[in-house]
Amino acid sequence: MKIIVIGGTGLIGSAVVKELEARHEVISVGNKDGVYRVDIEQKESIKALYKKIGKVDAIVVATGKVAFVNLAKMTTDDLMVGLSSKLMGQINCVLLGLECLNDYGSFTLTSGILNHDPIATGASAAMVNGGIDGFVTGAAIEMPRGIRINAVSPTVVKEALDKYGPYFRGYEAVPVERVARTYSKSVEGLQTGKIYCVN
Amino acid sequence: MKIIVIGGTGLIGSAVVKELEARHEVISVGNKDGVYRVDIEQKESIKALYKKIGKVDAIVVATGKVAFVNLAKMTTDDLMVGLSSKLMGQINCVLLGLECLNDYGSFTLTSGILNHDPIATGASAAMVNGGIDGFVTGAAIEMPRGIRINAVSPTVVKEALDKYGPYFRGYEAVPVERVARTYSKSVEGLQTGKIYCVN
Repeated sequence: MKIIVIGGTGLIGSAVVKELEARHEVISVGNKDGVYRVDIEQKESIKALYKKIGKVDAIVVATGKVAFVNLAKMTTDDLMVGLSSKLMGQINCVLLGLECLNDYGSFTLTSGILNHDPIATGASAAMVNGGIDGFVTGAAIEMPRGIRINAVSPTVVKEALDKYGPYFRGYEAVPVERVARTYSKSVEGLQTGKIYCVN
Repeated sequence: MKIIVIGGTGLIGSAVVKELEARHEVISVGNKDGVYRVDIEQKESIKALYKKIGKVDAIVVATGKVAFVNLAKMTTDDLMVGLSSKLMGQINCVLLGLECLNDYGSFTLTSGILNHDPIATGASAAMVNGGIDGFVTGAAIEMPRGIRINAVSPTVVKEALDKYGPYFRGYEAVPVERVARTYSKSVEGLQTGKIYCVN
């Protein structure tokens, strides 16, 4: 398979690239680094990326920003960070990527645990994750040409605990390789419309 | 209790008003009709409404638009309809309504079944409903002054079957009074962070 991993330079994305490139041709796409780059908040940037790469069998998106802010201080602008980046950025990678995917190809998006198991300052992330999960559930039944779509919804990753540990006290962290294997389940399996919770 | 029902002139909202006004002082807010009006897509309009009404004990939001479009033809603009109206419209009613609520007051938002049980053309609605459910889950644990927040997530309503029946074949429709009772459970009970599925 030929596979695009958008966000392939990040912590989770690079583990996904490592997991998949043992068996497939993987194109890792970064935001600022590497041969292939994209700004998922800009539709023209996504279009240009897909045009440059051509037809593929799978598109993985493992990137997207969200603002973490106390609810009492949260503004519409704080929410727009996540809506423009993690939510609409990922969804635009799907809508614009449909014609780039071969028949029976797949999309795998990335949501997260916070809409099921919330933390302080996480209301925006919970909204965005819920939006991604909902979109995947709704879009899966309408995908043309046997194309599939799933989301991976991880808890906090062990390798990120030095940064995020204080926000996730008591959460069982998962090794990033275990999260990466779940992406391969989505890409190399045949399931669709699934929200794979990794926790 | 003094209760605001935003969308109180709609099918579900008017049933909520009827259910609650038997026991409480209810202010029904419409979009184009009535003494109290609001455009939930405009923050200034929401602020003006709350300023006009003053302190209340509960805010119910039972309104919001979403575009129903085939996935293969769906554009960012189609998705923005739901993001601006049903999702961010309702959430802005929360963020701007916090200071309008008395201690131990409540918000009750409205999502819907489609992120759990999808239909054709429903990917945007599924995204929006998932976003609302996620926000409610995340926001509930951070609400100040004992304020609560829940969402009511109804399936298709019996009284709307003439309009929506063809999109919901095989779905068990619920009478609008049953949906309305669920809002009273949210407003008059003590639960928080709940997504009340009515189906």
